[in-house]
Amino acid sequence: MMLKNPASKYAAFQPVRLTDRTWPDAVITQAPIWLSTDLRDGNQALIEPMDGARKLQMFQALVKIGFKEIEVGFPSASQTEFDFVRKLIEEDLIPEDVTIQVLTQAREHLIERTFESLKGAKRAIVHLYNACAPIMRRVVLGTDEDGIVELATSQARLFQELAARQPETQWTFQYSPEMFSGTELAFSKRVVDAVTEVWQPTPERKCIINLPSTVEHSTPNIFADMIEWMHRNLARRDAIVLSVHPHNDRGTGTAAAEFAVMAGADRLEGCLFGNGERTGNLDVVNVALNLYTQGVSPGLDFSEIDEIRRVVEHCNQLPVHPRHPYVGDLVYTSFSGSHQDAIKKVFSARKEGDVWNVPYLPIDPKDLGRTYEAVIRVNSQSGKGGISYLLESEFGLELPRRLQIEFSQVVQGVMDAEGKELTAHDLWTLFEKEYGLHDVAAPQHRLHEQRGANGATEVELSADLVYGGKAVRVQGRGTGPIDAFVDGLQQATGRSVRVMDYHEHAIGAGANAKAVAYLELRVDDGRTLFGVGIDANIVSASLKAILSGLQRGTRGADNVAAEPEAATAR
Amino acid sequence: MMLKNPASKYAAFQPVRLTDRTWPDAVITQAPIWLSTDLRDGNQALIEPMDGARKLQMFQALVKIGFKEIEVGFPSASQTEFDFVRKLIEEDLIPEDVTIQVLTQAREHLIERTFESLKGAKRAIVHLYNACAPIMRRVVLGTDEDGIVELATSQARLFQELAARQPETQWTFQYSPEMFSGTELAFSKRVVDAVTEVWQPTPERKCIINLPSTVEHSTPNIFADMIEWMHRNLARRDAIVLSVHPHNDRGTGTAAAEFAVMAGADRLEGCLFGNGERTGNLDVVNVALNLYTQGVSPGLDFSEIDEIRRVVEHCNQLPVHPRHPYVGDLVYTSFSGSHQDAIKKVFSARKEGDVWNVPYLPIDPKDLGRTYEAVIRVNSQSGKGGISYLLESEFGLELPRRLQIEFSQVVQGVMDAEGKELTAHDLWTLFEKEYGLHDVAAPQHRLHEQRGANGATEVELSADLVYGGKAVRVQGRGTGPIDAFVDGLQQATGRSVRVMDYHEHAIGAGANAKAVAYLELRVDDGRTLFGVGIDANIVSASLKAILSGLQRGTRGADNVAAEPEAATAR
Repeated sequence: MMLKNPASKYAAFQPVRLTDRTWPDAVITQAPIWLSTDLRDGNQALIEPMDGARKLQMFQALVKIGFKEIEVGFPSASQTEFDFVRKLIEEDLIPEDVTIQVLTQAREHLIERTFESLKGAKRAIVHLYNACAPIMRRVVLGTDEDGIVELATSQARLFQELAARQPETQWTFQYSPEMFSGTELAFSKRVVDAVTEVWQPTPERKCIINLPSTVEHSTPNIFADMIEWMHRNLARRDAIVLSVHPHNDRGTGTAAAEFAVMAGADRLEGCLFGNGERTGNLDVVNVALNLYTQGVSPGLDFSEIDEIRRVVEHCNQLPVHPRHPYVGDLVYTSFSGSHQDAIKKVFSARKEGDVWNVPYLPIDPKDLGRTYEAVIRVNSQSGKGGISYLLESEFGLELPRRLQIEFSQVVQGVMDAEGKELTAHDLWTLFEKEYGLHDVAAPQHRLHEQRGANGATEVELSADLVYGGKAVRVQGRGTGPIDAFVDGLQQATGRSVRVMDYHEHAIGAGANAKAVAYLELRVDDGRTLFGVGIDANIVSASLKAILSGLQRGTRGADNVAAEPEAATAR
Repeated sequence: MMLKNPASKYAAFQPVRLTDRTWPDAVITQAPIWLSTDLRDGNQALIEPMDGARKLQMFQALVKIGFKEIEVGFPSASQTEFDFVRKLIEEDLIPEDVTIQVLTQAREHLIERTFESLKGAKRAIVHLYNACAPIMRRVVLGTDEDGIVELATSQARLFQELAARQPETQWTFQYSPEMFSGTELAFSKRVVDAVTEVWQPTPERKCIINLPSTVEHSTPNIFADMIEWMHRNLARRDAIVLSVHPHNDRGTGTAAAEFAVMAGADRLEGCLFGNGERTGNLDVVNVALNLYTQGVSPGLDFSEIDEIRRVVEHCNQLPVHPRHPYVGDLVYTSFSGSHQDAIKKVFSARKEGDVWNVPYLPIDPKDLGRTYEAVIRVNSQSGKGGISYLLESEFGLELPRRLQIEFSQVVQGVMDAEGKELTAHDLWTLFEKEYGLHDVAAPQHRLHEQRGANGATEVELSADLVYGGKAVRVQGRGTGPIDAFVDGLQQATGRSVRVMDYHEHAIGAGANAKAVAYLELRVDDGRTLFGVGIDANIVSASLKAILSGLQRGTRGADNVAAEPEAATAR
């Protein structure tokens, strides 16, 4: 059926295979060592690589999650990369228990520059790589097996010399035979053994050998066979931390990583939510949470996974897909009535302390700061009967996806109570009531923008509003009107609010056009909920939305989260 | 590190395991039978389920790809679902070699309604399911193993009775022990054997037994062990088409499907690009193309994968992620200089007819109607030095992602030739020149919209423009101005253009605001390229963009596609 004939153009991948493999019987009982390469392999695959501020934000997020080894860049590749490593070291931004890692190609001047970037570091992993696959030797590098071994060992020796000149740093060396996944196993072993022969690691002072599936070529069982073969056959195995670096070209990177650990690997390299060249690197969050659901602590903290997602989306400027395992907008959402029914029954029967066993929910969403959502249809007509479809087509509202889900629970409550289908007008009335569109008056406000000492602009806002039945004057400062209003509100009322997400768009056109603002807020007690405001003035709409959310937050949890107990869990 | 203690809350999944498994040595040499459930399991998991028109569009896309078995709905669940099945049958929309499938729960009135929906069908697969897992028996259904067997067999008998009353249809029965992935193997076998005892299938007239991993609970090797166990132990195996229906909660659905086939399954159920509840169903495109790259013809045609993607995104109203295997915007894009260099060298050395072996490209993008793209940095400062960043921050252009990639190749050509870094102003000049922003004059046009006989509106457009140095009058009709212009242009000049994608946005504000339109076009010779137009009038901007693209198409392939030979391949 395909235009080209695969029988002649493509061939099956055929490495050495084990017949006495043991990995299929292995069970992972302990987390591997994690290495984040978000700032290196992830960053280099972005349309817009991160600037210094975003790099630092990503680094701090990785530290907070609990990564103890973080690849922070390729310092010999550009001044920006070099400067970021210097900044981390000179400004003492690396915690005591975290080790940074940097990558370098096997070329003398690049290696020298790399060691220069690390001057003064307490600890560092220096990561050497060169391509080993036959196609790379023959066509790209124009050399043979001996040539590759000579290249790798001479640069490994240079590592030793340069490290000896910077004795203030505690060094760990790492070597990757690049394209391991496309290289003859015996040759990979030969190169790696030659490198460890130079480095002479010991069980007390190990080096790291990292086996990359630079491109996924095969089903992951074959990759597992390859890792098990290396695990069994490498020289000095007890002096090696065996690491793997999977990619995801065949959509099986997660499986490949899990099998590699079952086959003997000690360490996994990857990125948050699988960023990286082409289809991405290993998604370390996915593997970590897979372990978690099997009762094995991953040693990484994803208890506020949406916050991590926001940092990642901001730094990478790439979205996380709504069906992405563990983190997508839709992965704790149940659309099927029979699924919803089963979940409800099991939740009711479940006792605190029971082992987790809820149909259709492989993990408790609360463990990740999420909630289970049951989305119902407004009427029996699938298709043009959905809540958000009706609100958009009839009233011009483009609800953000999480607000759609939140509001659908309000609708469900009404439908359960009244047992009837709802019209578009019913929905609009319910929406107005739920988000207090008539209750919240526009705060009279004045805005003043000025350039501060450091060149950044700052906004001063003062607003008069009625809060809790009393007239209140709110005065605050911030980067913009929302920020300033939140600041002032906390001073004036003691209510604290964090803005998690913001959408605003026009409804209507010309003289009648209004703006509707949807703000996702985290309120005092830790709940996340939406506020909505509509006004001809875009600032007023936003301020109303904050008041709308606060009012909903005060009203209690009944209509807000699927399960009230979520309110106190965070 | 996690807030909750996994050691007590979660437990490892422990089914029976095989120690004499054979699947890890198996190699897939032939495609499985494919079943698309986009219109059923996929559709039911959408925020806005498809309306009739979208369902039909999806059905026709599935037929064109080559699916021979298509699950088209759950006809007893709603009138919409029922009506769609009737429409397919009554309007004779099902090709001779395609069989539709419908799902029903094991409840008498639902089964009767299901058979009613199929009246007059030539062939049909009727798919019965009921939950079997212990948690479902105990808590949700309040029954025991005997109760489940009784339920399944009594409904299986009803299938036979109802089918006998509609002998004009060639029936195939399918049974799914739902939550197979969470059920004791011995009990799954017991239920399935009891059902096939009723149905008495033969090797000449098989039934389908479908084993769903309703929720992924384990690493995919364990799922493979379970499938191999069933494959070996089921009664009447030679009279059964053994099917699996993987989900993707642990991100390992693709691996699970491949292993299931290696373990003895004959058939896979899934959706295009993995749509479905939560993290989705199996991505059948991924598995099919994995086979393709191993020299095995999948029997499905993805040679125009971007067109399929557009249909899927339109029908599902969900995006395909930029890193999605085989289809994402970024998966044939190389950002790394050393990757680009290696690919270039191997492309040069490659001879027509060679087996595909190109570093960093596991498949030839041309086989899917895509092109390899090398994206370069405008200058050595990563971060705020990117092309699209500069064009957006300095000139307000929000380039669509594929246009960013296209234009980056133009920039690369200039940088290679001149060997210098480019400023934002250099980029703007290059962009103006490449897209002929000064060369293309706004076509003077008149638009007339009228309501046609069938109630749909139609637009008549006439425009005067200069084409190939001569004044030309273009007159055409269509659903909107772009459509009508393309129609008229073909009549007037013989040039054919298809609009693949359209973006337009404002730059500037107030009296100076202009619209910029980016149109992705497929031109006469099969190439896909962008045209760009800027004008105060949004229609003029779009028409200019079409002329811009046509002009670029005429100019030759040098600046348009990474590899000129792509131009003649389609």
